[in-house]
Amino acid sequence: MSGWLAVAGLGPGAPDWVTPEVEATLAEATDIVGYFPYVDRVPHRDGLSRHASDNRVEVDRARHALELAAGGARVVVVSGGDPGIFAMAAAVLEAVEAGDPAWRELDIRVLPGLSAMQAAAARLGAPLGHDFCAISLSDNLKPWSVVERRLAAAAEGDFVMAFYNPASKARPGQIHEAFALLRRLKAGSTPVAFARAVGRSDEAVAITTLAEADPGLADMSTLVLVGSSDTRLIERPGGKRAWMLTPRSYGAGR
Amino acid sequence: MSGWLAVAGLGPGAPDWVTPEVEATLAEATDIVGYFPYVDRVPHRDGLSRHASDNRVEVDRARHALELAAGGARVVVVSGGDPGIFAMAAAVLEAVEAGDPAWRELDIRVLPGLSAMQAAAARLGAPLGHDFCAISLSDNLKPWSVVERRLAAAAEGDFVMAFYNPASKARPGQIHEAFALLRRLKAGSTPVAFARAVGRSDEAVAITTLAEADPGLADMSTLVLVGSSDTRLIERPGGKRAWMLTPRSYGAGR
Repeated sequence: MSGWLAVAGLGPGAPDWVTPEVEATLAEATDIVGYFPYVDRVPHRDGLSRHASDNRVEVDRARHALELAAGGARVVVVSGGDPGIFAMAAAVLEAVEAGDPAWRELDIRVLPGLSAMQAAAARLGAPLGHDFCAISLSDNLKPWSVVERRLAAAAEGDFVMAFYNPASKARPGQIHEAFALLRRLKAGSTPVAFARAVGRSDEAVAITTLAEADPGLADMSTLVLVGSSDTRLIERPGGKRAWMLTPRSYGAGR
Repeated sequence: MSGWLAVAGLGPGAPDWVTPEVEATLAEATDIVGYFPYVDRVPHRDGLSRHASDNRVEVDRARHALELAAGGARVVVVSGGDPGIFAMAAAVLEAVEAGDPAWRELDIRVLPGLSAMQAAAARLGAPLGHDFCAISLSDNLKPWSVVERRLAAAAEGDFVMAFYNPASKARPGQIHEAFALLRRLKAGSTPVAFARAVGRSDEAVAITTLAEADPGLADMSTLVLVGSSDTRLIERPGGKRAWMLTPRSYGAGR
Protein backbone atom coordinates (compact mmCIF):
# COMPACT_ATOMS: atom_id res chain seq x y z
CA MET A 1 0.00 0.00 0.00
CA SER A 2 1.26 3.46 -0.85
CA GLY A 3 -0.97 5.52 1.41
CA TRP A 4 0.28 7.53 4.34
CA LEU A 5 -1.06 9.44 7.29
CA ALA A 6 0.31 12.71 8.67
CA VAL A 7 -1.00 14.29 11.86
CA ALA A 8 -0.38 17.98 11.26
CA GLY A 9 -0.48 20.98 13.57
CA LEU A 10 -2.07 24.10 12.10
CA GLY A 11 -0.90 26.23 15.04
CA PRO A 12 -3.07 28.52 17.14
CA GLY A 13 -4.76 30.25 14.20
CA ALA A 14 -2.54 32.81 12.46
CA PRO A 15 -1.69 31.67 8.90
CA ASP A 16 1.91 32.88 9.23
CA TRP A 17 2.42 30.46 12.12
CA VAL A 18 1.82 27.37 9.94
CA THR A 19 5.13 25.68 9.13
CA PRO A 20 6.27 25.09 5.52
CA GLU A 21 6.37 21.37 6.33
CA VAL A 22 2.65 21.36 7.11
CA GLU A 23 1.81 23.47 4.05
CA ALA A 24 3.76 21.14 1.76
CA THR A 25 2.12 18.06 3.23
CA LEU A 26 -1.38 19.52 2.89
CA ALA A 27 -0.59 20.17 -0.79
CA GLU A 28 0.17 16.45 -1.33
CA ALA A 29 -2.90 15.13 0.50
CA THR A 30 -5.88 13.38 -1.05
CA ASP A 31 -7.92 13.52 2.19
CA ILE A 32 -8.16 15.93 5.11
CA VAL A 33 -9.68 14.62 8.35
CA GLY A 34 -10.43 16.65 11.45
CA TYR A 35 -12.63 18.71 13.72
CA PHE A 36 -14.59 21.03 11.39
CA PRO A 37 -13.03 24.41 12.39
CA TYR A 38 -9.58 23.01 11.54
CA VAL A 39 -10.71 21.35 8.31
CA ASP A 40 -12.22 24.73 7.36
CA ARG A 41 -8.74 26.25 7.50
CA VAL A 42 -7.58 24.06 4.57
CA PRO A 43 -8.65 25.54 1.22
CA HIS A 44 -10.73 23.51 -1.21
CA ARG A 45 -8.99 22.21 -4.31
CA ASP A 46 -9.71 19.61 -6.98
CA GLY A 47 -8.90 16.08 -5.88
CA LEU A 48 -9.03 16.89 -2.17
CA SER A 49 -11.71 15.23 -0.02
CA ARG A 50 -12.42 16.96 3.27
CA HIS A 51 -13.89 14.94 6.13
CA ALA A 52 -15.03 17.23 8.94
CA SER A 53 -16.39 15.89 12.21
CA ASP A 54 -17.64 17.26 15.49
CA ASN A 55 -15.57 17.50 18.65
CA ARG A 56 -15.29 14.59 21.14
CA VAL A 57 -15.09 11.90 18.49
CA GLU A 58 -11.30 11.89 18.27
CA VAL A 59 -10.84 8.12 18.15
CA ASP A 60 -13.60 7.60 15.55
CA ARG A 61 -11.94 10.28 13.47
CA ALA A 62 -8.53 8.64 13.93
CA ARG A 63 -9.87 5.22 12.88
CA HIS A 64 -11.45 6.70 9.79
CA ALA A 65 -8.17 8.36 8.84
CA LEU A 66 -6.25 5.10 9.36
CA GLU A 67 -8.73 3.19 7.18
CA LEU A 68 -8.33 5.75 4.42
CA ALA A 69 -4.53 5.57 4.59
CA ALA A 70 -4.59 1.75 4.68
CA GLY A 71 -6.67 1.94 1.49
CA GLY A 72 -3.98 3.95 -0.27
CA ALA A 73 -5.04 7.54 0.45
CA ARG A 74 -2.63 10.30 1.44
CA VAL A 75 -4.33 11.52 4.59
CA VAL A 76 -3.66 14.56 6.75
CA VAL A 77 -5.34 14.62 10.15
CA VAL A 78 -5.44 18.32 11.01
CA SER A 79 -5.16 19.51 14.58
CA GLY A 80 -5.13 22.96 16.12
CA GLY A 81 -1.90 23.96 17.84
CA ASP A 82 0.62 21.15 18.08
CA PRO A 83 -0.90 17.70 17.45
CA GLY A 84 1.50 16.30 20.04
CA ILE A 85 0.22 18.47 22.91
CA PHE A 86 -3.29 17.56 24.14
CA ALA A 87 -4.31 16.85 20.55
CA MET A 88 -4.72 14.36 17.72
CA ALA A 89 -1.33 12.57 17.70
CA ALA A 90 -2.28 10.65 20.86
CA ALA A 91 -5.76 9.87 19.51
CA VAL A 92 -4.31 8.44 16.29
CA LEU A 93 -1.81 6.26 18.16
CA GLU A 94 -4.50 5.08 20.59
CA ALA A 95 -6.45 3.94 17.53
CA VAL A 96 -3.36 2.22 16.11
CA GLU A 97 -2.74 0.45 19.43
CA ALA A 98 -6.30 -0.89 19.65
CA GLY A 99 -6.93 -1.44 15.95
CA ASP A 100 -6.01 -3.56 12.95
CA PRO A 101 -2.42 -4.87 13.43
CA ALA A 102 -1.72 -3.90 9.81
CA TRP A 103 -2.03 -0.24 10.82
CA ARG A 104 1.29 -0.60 12.67
CA GLU A 105 2.99 -0.91 9.31
CA LEU A 106 1.51 2.31 7.95
CA ASP A 107 3.67 5.32 7.15
CA ILE A 108 2.55 7.64 9.96
CA ARG A 109 4.23 10.97 10.67
CA VAL A 110 3.56 13.69 13.23
CA LEU A 111 4.18 17.25 11.97
CA PRO A 112 4.60 19.63 14.90
CA GLY A 113 2.94 23.02 15.14
CA LEU A 114 2.97 25.96 17.54
CA SER A 115 0.87 25.27 20.63
CA ALA A 116 -1.44 27.76 22.35
CA MET A 117 0.90 28.26 25.30
CA GLN A 118 3.66 29.42 22.95
CA ALA A 119 1.42 31.96 21.25
CA ALA A 120 0.23 33.20 24.64
CA ALA A 121 3.78 33.41 25.96
CA ALA A 122 4.95 35.35 22.92
CA ARG A 123 2.26 37.99 23.41
CA LEU A 124 2.92 38.27 27.14
CA GLY A 125 6.73 38.48 27.02
CA ALA A 126 8.54 35.53 28.56
CA PRO A 127 6.31 33.84 31.15
CA LEU A 128 7.67 30.39 30.16
CA GLY A 129 11.30 31.49 30.47
CA HIS A 130 11.92 28.89 33.15
CA ASP A 131 10.59 25.47 34.24
CA PHE A 132 6.89 24.99 33.60
CA CYS A 133 4.04 22.46 33.46
CA ALA A 134 1.25 22.09 30.93
CA ILE A 135 -1.95 20.69 32.44
CA SER A 136 -5.29 19.97 30.83
CA LEU A 137 -8.05 20.91 33.26
CA SER A 138 -10.57 18.74 31.44
CA ASP A 139 -11.95 15.92 33.56
CA ASN A 140 -13.51 14.29 30.54
CA LEU A 141 -10.89 11.52 30.33
CA LYS A 142 -9.33 11.58 33.80
CA PRO A 143 -10.70 11.88 37.34
CA TRP A 144 -10.68 15.37 38.82
CA SER A 145 -8.56 13.96 41.68
CA VAL A 146 -5.71 13.55 39.19
CA VAL A 147 -5.99 17.21 38.21
CA GLU A 148 -5.92 18.20 41.89
CA ARG A 149 -2.88 16.03 42.53
CA ARG A 150 -1.06 17.60 39.60
CA LEU A 151 -1.97 21.16 40.57
CA ALA A 152 -0.66 20.53 44.08
CA ALA A 153 2.55 19.00 42.71
CA ALA A 154 3.04 21.90 40.31
CA ALA A 155 2.63 24.34 43.20
CA GLU A 156 5.03 22.31 45.36
CA GLY A 157 7.59 22.41 42.55
CA ASP A 158 6.97 26.16 42.04
CA PHE A 159 6.50 25.60 38.32
CA VAL A 160 4.89 28.12 35.99
CA MET A 161 1.62 26.49 34.91
CA ALA A 162 -0.11 26.56 31.54
CA PHE A 163 -3.72 25.39 31.65
CA TYR A 164 -5.37 23.93 28.56
CA ASN A 165 -9.14 23.27 28.44
CA PRO A 166 -9.84 25.49 31.47
CA ALA A 167 -13.58 25.39 30.91
CA SER A 168 -16.14 23.99 28.53
CA LYS A 169 -19.83 24.56 27.98
CA ALA A 170 -20.63 21.21 29.54
CA ARG A 171 -18.27 21.62 32.51
CA PRO A 172 -17.51 25.31 33.19
CA GLY A 173 -16.33 24.77 36.76
CA GLN A 174 -12.81 23.33 36.42
CA ILE A 175 -10.94 26.63 36.37
CA HIS A 176 -12.92 27.89 39.38
CA GLU A 177 -11.92 24.81 41.37
CA ALA A 178 -8.31 25.02 40.17
CA PHE A 179 -8.00 28.65 41.28
CA ALA A 180 -9.59 27.89 44.65
CA LEU A 181 -6.98 25.15 45.20
CA LEU A 182 -4.05 27.30 44.04
CA ARG A 183 -5.11 30.22 46.26
CA ARG A 184 -4.49 27.97 49.25
CA LEU A 185 -1.00 27.03 48.01
CA LYS A 186 0.46 30.11 46.30
CA ALA A 187 0.83 33.84 47.01
CA GLY A 188 -2.12 36.02 46.02
CA SER A 189 0.29 38.33 44.20
CA THR A 190 1.30 35.59 41.73
CA PRO A 191 0.86 36.92 38.17
CA VAL A 192 -1.91 35.23 36.17
CA ALA A 193 -2.70 35.73 32.48
CA PHE A 194 -5.72 34.87 30.36
CA ALA A 195 -4.80 34.57 26.68
CA ARG A 196 -7.81 34.01 24.48
CA ALA A 197 -7.66 33.06 20.79
CA VAL A 198 -4.11 34.39 20.31
CA GLY A 199 -3.36 34.80 16.60
CA ARG A 200 -7.03 35.02 15.64
CA SER A 201 -9.17 38.11 15.01
CA ASP A 202 -10.85 37.86 18.40
CA GLU A 203 -7.56 37.71 20.33
CA ALA A 204 -7.79 39.05 23.90
CA VAL A 205 -5.03 39.02 26.51
CA ALA A 206 -5.32 40.12 30.14
CA ILE A 207 -2.89 40.08 33.07
CA THR A 208 -3.99 40.00 36.70
CA THR A 209 -3.02 38.28 39.97
CA LEU A 210 -4.07 35.00 41.50
CA ALA A 211 -5.96 36.87 44.25
CA GLU A 212 -7.88 39.04 41.80
CA ALA A 213 -8.27 36.71 38.81
CA ASP A 214 -11.84 36.09 37.67
CA PRO A 215 -11.91 32.47 36.49
CA GLY A 216 -15.08 33.32 34.59
CA LEU A 217 -12.82 35.03 32.01
CA ALA A 218 -11.65 31.62 30.76
CA ASP A 219 -13.57 29.83 28.04
CA MET A 220 -12.59 26.86 25.90
CA SER A 221 -10.46 29.12 23.65
CA THR A 222 -8.45 30.50 26.56
CA LEU A 223 -4.97 29.49 27.66
CA VAL A 224 -4.41 30.38 31.33
CA LEU A 225 -0.91 30.98 32.70
CA VAL A 226 -0.09 31.06 36.42
CA GLY A 227 3.37 32.28 37.41
CA SER A 228 6.02 30.78 39.68
CA SER A 229 7.28 32.71 42.72
CA ASP A 230 9.84 34.28 40.36
CA THR A 231 7.37 35.46 37.70
CA ARG A 232 6.94 39.23 37.67
CA LEU A 233 5.74 42.13 35.56
CA ILE A 234 7.77 44.82 33.80
CA GLU A 235 5.58 47.89 33.64
CA ARG A 236 5.60 49.97 30.46
CA PRO A 237 4.64 53.60 29.91
CA GLY A 238 1.88 54.91 27.67
CA GLY A 239 -0.78 52.45 28.72
CA LYS A 240 1.01 49.52 27.13
CA ARG A 241 0.39 46.14 28.71
CA ALA A 242 3.20 45.11 31.08
CA TRP A 243 5.60 42.36 30.08
CA MET A 244 5.30 39.10 32.04
CA LEU A 245 8.72 37.62 32.81
CA THR A 246 9.92 34.41 34.42
CA PRO A 247 13.67 34.95 34.51
CA ARG A 248 16.25 32.28 33.69
CA SER A 249 17.72 32.44 37.19
CA TYR A 250 15.83 31.19 40.25
CA GLY A 251 15.32 33.09 43.47
CA ALA A 252 17.69 35.95 42.60
CA GLY A 253 16.71 39.23 44.24
CA ARG A 254 14.49 37.65 46.89
CA MET B 1 12.73 56.30 17.08
CA SER B 2 11.61 53.88 14.42
CA GLY B 3 13.71 50.89 15.34
CA TRP B 4 12.30 47.64 16.62
CA LEU B 5 13.44 44.39 18.16
CA ALA B 6 12.03 40.95 17.44
CA VAL B 7 13.12 37.86 19.36
CA ALA B 8 12.63 35.10 16.83
CA GLY B 9 12.61 31.33 17.16
CA LEU B 10 14.39 29.46 14.37
CA GLY B 11 13.04 26.12 15.59
CA PRO B 12 15.09 22.99 16.26
CA GLY B 13 17.03 23.09 12.99
CA ALA B 14 15.02 21.93 9.97
CA PRO B 15 14.43 24.82 7.54
CA ASP B 16 10.82 23.72 6.91
CA TRP B 17 10.05 24.19 10.62
CA VAL B 18 10.75 27.96 10.48
CA THR B 19 7.47 29.91 10.47
CA PRO B 20 6.60 32.36 7.67
CA GLU B 21 6.34 35.07 10.36
CA VAL B 22 9.99 34.57 11.30
CA GLU B 23 11.11 34.42 7.65
CA ALA B 24 9.28 37.68 6.84
CA THR B 25 10.75 39.43 9.87
CA LEU B 26 14.28 38.29 9.05
CA ALA B 27 13.79 39.76 5.56
CA GLU B 28 13.00 43.20 7.07
CA ALA B 29 15.88 43.24 9.55
CA THR B 30 18.95 45.47 9.42
CA ASP B 31 20.72 43.56 12.20
CA ILE B 32 20.81 39.95 13.37
CA VAL B 33 22.06 39.28 16.90
CA GLY B 34 22.61 35.87 18.47
CA TYR B 35 24.68 32.88 19.39
CA PHE B 36 26.84 32.12 16.35
CA PRO B 37 25.28 28.78 15.24
CA TYR B 38 21.88 30.50 15.03
CA VAL B 39 23.23 33.61 13.30
CA ASP B 40 24.89 31.26 10.79
CA ARG B 41 21.43 29.97 9.85
CA VAL B 42 20.44 33.41 8.48
CA PRO B 43 21.80 33.95 4.96
CA HIS B 44 24.04 36.91 4.18
CA ARG B 45 22.51 39.73 2.15
CA ASP B 46 23.38 43.36 1.37
CA GLY B 47 22.40 45.74 4.14
CA LEU B 48 22.27 43.06 6.82
CA SER B 49 24.72 43.22 9.72
CA ARG B 50 25.20 39.97 11.59
CA HIS B 51 26.43 40.10 15.20
CA ALA B 52 27.40 36.64 16.38
CA SER B 53 28.48 35.99 19.94
CA ASP B 54 29.51 33.03 22.04
CA ASN B 55 27.20 31.18 24.40
CA ARG B 56 26.72 32.25 28.05
CA VAL B 57 26.63 35.97 27.28
CA GLU B 58 22.87 36.18 26.82
CA VAL B 59 22.33 39.42 28.73
CA ASP B 60 25.26 41.21 27.04
CA ARG B 61 23.82 40.10 23.71
CA ALA B 62 20.35 41.31 24.72
CA ARG B 63 21.69 44.73 25.80
CA HIS B 64 23.54 45.11 22.52
CA ALA B 65 20.37 44.30 20.58
CA LEU B 66 18.34 46.81 22.64
CA GLU B 67 20.95 49.53 22.03
CA LEU B 68 20.82 48.88 18.29
CA ALA B 69 17.01 49.04 18.26
CA ALA B 70 16.98 52.19 20.39
CA GLY B 71 19.31 53.73 17.79
CA GLY B 72 16.80 53.03 15.02
CA ALA B 73 17.87 49.60 13.77
CA ARG B 74 15.47 46.80 12.92
CA VAL B 75 16.93 44.02 15.03
CA VAL B 76 16.17 40.32 15.14
CA VAL B 77 17.59 38.40 18.07
CA VAL B 78 17.70 34.84 16.81
CA SER B 79 17.17 31.91 19.14
CA GLY B 80 17.10 28.18 18.55
CA GLY B 81 13.77 26.49 19.23
CA ASP B 82 11.16 28.78 20.76
CA PRO B 83 12.66 31.98 22.21
CA GLY B 84 10.04 31.80 24.95
CA ILE B 85 11.15 28.41 26.28
CA PHE B 86 14.53 28.44 28.06
CA ALA B 87 15.82 30.94 25.52
CA MET B 88 16.39 34.55 24.51
CA ALA B 89 12.97 36.17 25.23
CA ALA B 90 13.63 36.05 28.98
CA ALA B 91 17.19 37.33 28.53
CA VAL B 92 15.96 40.32 26.50
CA LEU B 93 13.27 41.20 29.05
CA GLU B 94 15.75 40.81 31.93
CA ALA B 95 17.93 43.37 30.12
CA VAL B 96 14.91 45.66 29.64
CA GLU B 97 14.00 45.37 33.33
CA ALA B 98 17.50 46.29 34.51
CA GLY B 99 18.39 48.73 31.75
CA ASP B 100 17.67 52.17 30.31
CA PRO B 101 14.03 53.09 31.16
CA ALA B 102 13.62 54.25 27.55
CA TRP B 103 13.93 50.62 26.44
CA ARG B 104 10.46 49.98 27.92
CA GLU B 105 9.02 52.12 25.14
CA LEU B 106 10.67 50.11 22.38
CA ASP B 107 8.66 48.05 19.92
CA ILE B 108 9.60 44.56 21.10
CA ARG B 109 7.95 41.41 19.77
CA VAL B 110 8.47 37.73 20.48
CA LEU B 111 8.03 35.43 17.47
CA PRO B 112 7.42 31.87 18.61
CA GLY B 113 9.14 28.83 17.11
CA LEU B 114 8.99 25.09 17.53
CA SER B 115 10.81 23.94 20.64
CA ALA B 116 13.06 20.87 20.92
CA MET B 117 10.50 18.90 22.94
CA GLN B 118 7.96 19.26 20.13
CA ALA B 119 10.39 17.98 17.51
CA ALA B 120 11.34 15.09 19.77
CA ALA B 121 7.69 14.27 20.50
CA ALA B 122 6.81 14.31 16.81
CA ARG B 123 9.53 11.76 15.99
CA LEU B 124 8.58 9.53 18.93
CA GLY B 125 4.80 9.49 18.42
CA ALA B 126 2.81 11.19 21.17
CA PRO B 127 4.80 11.16 24.42
CA LEU B 128 3.44 14.62 25.35
CA GLY B 129 -0.18 13.63 24.74
CA HIS B 130 -1.08 14.37 28.35
CA ASP B 131 0.10 16.64 31.22
CA PHE B 132 3.84 17.29 31.22
CA CYS B 133 6.63 19.43 32.68
CA ALA B 134 9.59 21.05 30.97
CA ILE B 135 12.63 21.34 33.22
CA SER B 136 16.09 22.75 32.51
CA LEU B 137 18.67 20.59 34.26
CA SER B 138 21.27 23.35 34.10
CA ASP B 139 22.40 24.55 37.51
CA ASN B 140 24.18 27.49 35.96
CA LEU B 141 21.51 30.00 37.09
CA LYS B 142 19.69 28.10 39.84
CA PRO B 143 20.82 25.92 42.75
CA TRP B 144 20.75 22.17 42.11
CA SER B 145 18.40 21.86 45.11
CA VAL B 146 15.72 23.62 43.03
CA VAL B 147 16.16 21.07 40.25
CA GLU B 148 15.83 18.24 42.79
CA ARG B 149 12.70 19.79 44.27
CA ARG B 150 11.14 20.10 40.83
CA LEU B 151 12.06 16.56 39.80
CA ALA B 152 10.47 15.22 42.99
CA ALA B 153 7.34 17.31 42.42
CA ALA B 154 7.10 16.18 38.79
CA ALA B 155 7.35 12.56 39.93
CA GLU B 156 4.76 13.15 42.66
CA GLY B 157 2.39 14.64 40.05
CA ASP B 158 3.15 11.75 37.64
CA PHE B 159 3.88 14.22 34.86
CA VAL B 160 5.71 13.32 31.68
CA MET B 161 9.02 15.21 31.90
CA ALA B 162 11.00 16.93 29.16
CA PHE B 163 14.56 17.79 30.16
CA TYR B 164 16.42 20.63 28.49
CA ASN B 165 20.16 21.18 29.02
CA PRO B 166 20.69 17.67 30.41
CA ALA B 167 24.47 17.98 30.26
CA SER B 168 27.16 20.36 29.17
CA LYS B 169 30.89 20.09 28.69
CA ALA B 170 31.53 22.05 31.88
CA ARG B 171 28.97 20.16 33.98
CA PRO B 172 28.21 16.71 32.52
CA GLY B 173 26.73 15.28 35.72
CA GLN B 174 23.23 16.73 35.95
CA ILE B 175 21.43 14.04 33.98
CA HIS B 176 23.22 11.31 35.97
CA GLU B 177 22.00 12.85 39.24
CA ALA B 178 18.50 13.38 37.85
CA PHE B 179 18.19 9.75 36.78
CA ALA B 180 19.51 8.54 40.16
CA LEU B 181 16.81 10.59 41.89
CA LEU B 182 14.01 9.48 39.53
CA ARG B 183 14.97 5.80 39.89
CA ARG B 184 14.08 6.10 43.56
CA LEU B 185 10.67 7.62 42.77
CA LYS B 186 9.41 6.00 39.56
CA ALA B 187 9.07 2.49 38.12
CA GLY B 188 12.13 1.14 36.34
CA SER B 189 9.93 0.21 33.39
CA THR B 190 9.03 3.88 32.72
CA PRO B 191 9.79 4.67 29.06
CA VAL B 192 12.63 7.11 28.49
CA ALA B 193 13.72 8.66 25.20
CA PHE B 194 16.86 10.46 24.12
CA ALA B 195 16.23 12.73 21.14
CA ARG B 196 19.40 14.31 19.81
CA ALA B 197 19.49 17.12 17.21
CA VAL B 198 16.02 16.31 15.82
CA GLY B 199 15.56 18.00 12.44
CA ARG B 200 19.28 18.23 11.79
CA SER B 201 21.54 15.96 9.76
CA ASP B 202 22.96 14.30 12.86
CA GLU B 203 19.54 13.44 14.32
CA ALA B 204 19.52 10.38 16.60
CA VAL B 205 16.57 9.06 18.60
CA ALA B 206 16.62 6.17 21.07
CA ILE B 207 13.96 4.68 23.35
CA THR B 208 14.78 2.77 26.52
CA THR B 209 13.53 2.47 30.11
CA LEU B 210 14.39 4.39 33.25
CA ALA B 211 16.11 1.29 34.69
CA GLU B 212 18.26 0.75 31.61
CA ALA B 213 18.82 4.30 30.39
CA ASP B 214 22.45 5.36 30.05
CA PRO B 215 22.52 9.04 31.01
CA GLY B 216 25.85 9.30 29.20
CA LEU B 217 23.83 9.28 25.94
CA ALA B 218 22.68 12.86 26.65
CA ASP B 219 24.76 15.79 25.50
CA MET B 220 23.87 19.47 25.21
CA SER B 221 21.97 18.83 21.94
CA THR B 222 19.78 16.13 23.50
CA LEU B 223 16.21 16.45 24.70
CA VAL B 224 15.39 13.75 27.25
CA LEU B 225 11.82 12.57 27.80
CA VAL B 226 10.71 10.52 30.81
CA GLY B 227 7.22 9.04 30.72
CA SER B 228 4.37 9.13 33.23
CA SER B 229 2.93 5.90 34.65
CA ASP B 230 0.59 5.91 31.62
CA THR B 231 3.29 6.28 28.96
CA ARG B 232 3.80 3.11 26.92
CA LEU B 233 5.22 1.78 23.68
CA ILE B 234 3.41 0.52 20.60
CA GLU B 235 5.67 -2.03 18.96
CA ARG B 236 5.95 -2.05 15.17
CA PRO B 237 7.05 -4.81 12.82
CA GLY B 238 9.99 -4.77 10.45
CA GLY B 239 12.52 -3.30 12.84
CA LYS B 240 10.78 0.05 12.96
CA ARG B 241 11.18 2.02 16.18
CA ALA B 242 8.18 1.66 18.50
CA TRP B 243 5.79 4.56 18.97
CA MET B 244 5.85 6.22 22.40
CA LEU B 245 2.36 7.14 23.59
CA THR B 246 0.97 9.00 26.57
CA PRO B 247 -2.77 8.59 26.07
CA ARG B 248 -5.34 11.33 26.64
CA SER B 249 -7.07 9.35 29.38
CA TYR B 250 -5.45 8.70 32.75
CA GLY B 251 -5.11 5.35 34.46
CA ALA B 252 -7.34 3.46 32.03
CA GLY B 253 -6.44 -0.19 31.73
CA ARG B 254 -4.46 -0.34 34.96
